[in-house]
Amino acid sequence: MTVAFQGTAGAYSEAAAAHLYPEATPQPCDTFADLFEAVANKTVQAGVVPIENSLFGSVHANYDHLRTHDVHIEVGQFMRIRHCLMAPSGTTRDTIRTVHSHPQALGQCQNYVARTLPDAEPVAAYDTAGAARAVAKSDDRTQAAIASKQAAIEYGLTVLAEGIEDHNGNYTRFLGIRAGEAEDHVHPQANRTSVVFALRENVPGALFKSLAVFALRELDLCKMESRPQFGTPGQYLFYVDVAGSYADTPLRRALGHLHELTTEQKLLGAYHEAPIPTS
Amino acid sequence: MTVAFQGTAGAYSEAAAAHLYPEATPQPCDTFADLFEAVANKTVQAGVVPIENSLFGSVHANYDHLRTHDVHIEVGQFMRIRHCLMAPSGTTRDTIRTVHSHPQALGQCQNYVARTLPDAEPVAAYDTAGAARAVAKSDDRTQAAIASKQAAIEYGLTVLAEGIEDHNGNYTRFLGIRAGEAEDHVHPQANRTSVVFALRENVPGALFKSLAVFALRELDLCKMESRPQFGTPGQYLFYVDVAGSYADTPLRRALGHLHELTTEQKLLGAYHEAPIPTS
Repeated sequence: MTVAFQGTAGAYSEAAAAHLYPEATPQPCDTFADLFEAVANKTVQAGVVPIENSLFGSVHANYDHLRTHDVHIEVGQFMRIRHCLMAPSGTTRDTIRTVHSHPQALGQCQNYVARTLPDAEPVAAYDTAGAARAVAKSDDRTQAAIASKQAAIEYGLTVLAEGIEDHNGNYTRFLGIRAGEAEDHVHPQANRTSVVFALRENVPGALFKSLAVFALRELDLCKMESRPQFGTPGQYLFYVDVAGSYADTPLRRALGHLHELTTEQKLLGAYHEAPIPTS
Repeated sequence: MTVAFQGTAGAYSEAAAAHLYPEATPQPCDTFADLFEAVANKTVQAGVVPIENSLFGSVHANYDHLRTHDVHIEVGQFMRIRHCLMAPSGTTRDTIRTVHSHPQALGQCQNYVARTLPDAEPVAAYDTAGAARAVAKSDDRTQAAIASKQAAIEYGLTVLAEGIEDHNGNYTRFLGIRAGEAEDHVHPQANRTSVVFALRENVPGALFKSLAVFALRELDLCKMESRPQFGTPGQYLFYVDVAGSYADTPLRRALGHLHELTTEQKLLGAYHEAPIPTS
């Protein structure tokens, strides 16, 4: 079995893929669009994508891919992002002059680098794992990279420090996806059901009514997000995660009721999601 | 008057700052944390920050800064992000071998670059404007940058192509912020009111009830988003934008009613926001 992730070997998404699909062989994809195509066409058996980060919010582009491709969510999980400082063997903090990583990771470790490596200059790279690969290839003891522990192992670098991010609330939620419609692939232990919809215009209080379909049936929402549909002024898309399974009659009835209020509605998945880790 | 933005001269945020505060002198800041500090301390008169992007979602870190600093929103606006290909004068597409930009911008123009510059290699930079500055400094006709038109003007580069992003639905919503509490700075033409809150636990259906305080008063929500509070399992923060002004009695009463359901609640601003541009 192969599981696709976006990025280079050693990317955080690869660690997530290995965690969610321990039996599968991770396979890198250049773009999210390529990944969704590969999953929908069954070129790969599954895919793992980031859907939201605690600092940077939802990855709307991936919600769009979920909405428009013949795939469904089969598992979800928040994972702590722990950045590591890594360098070729023999490097010490004193010899480091440049620190290579994706600008977002460099930004997240800014205080750490300023404090512990005052003589080092941050250098942007296309992705974190690519930075690790390039530093390993250089075999230069003035260079270090910021990337996942997985990347250090992948490229044979020594981890000099772990968990160097300035803000320890850095979590990313990953989804495991597979081909086929969500209705046909309800997970037996599903505790979360995701749906995207667009409301009918000219229904007064449509948003409130759309949430009432869940509230009236004592169903809890775990996530809710609205987003303008660009190109269609005044039209919004709503992403809602409901606690429970599509296999439960009240939840299935709520989604039937919701159809009375929506112009577009897609079940994205009924799947198992573990609680958010606390450390 | 000075208005702070995060990034380098020529950043998209600088263009937004110039648009929202045409009379002010834009001033770059290294980080969002620095920017919020400068605004709250009145080192600068105002600041402009991105709060959500149509492809990448909300910038949660900036919502956190709004929540924790003594600032309020005084204006909001969605702006189309139009990437430009730029190079030193005399460069033609045939001479370009490397294209420099932030990885996100390189990703957004991937198809364009593959199609029109098949011999060019993408090279990551810390930010888009910094890439333009470095290319200008090199004065090398094999190098091009992807950045804002503003950056081309700033660094004396020639724009070879404009609007080269693969996906034309790339909009970023910027907020203009100022020191002081939102309650004391309601914009006379306010058409939007933003609030962040955390719900009391153990109130059954608390989320539904919190939205009912608006629905029962015929108040429309323009944006709604929930997000787990990391470190406090099961606790969520909600960001809600309501159509209307805090100066209107029903809206003010709705927020009073909301207090009955929340453990934390902050008015972020009552301000004017122009409609989303359609092209």
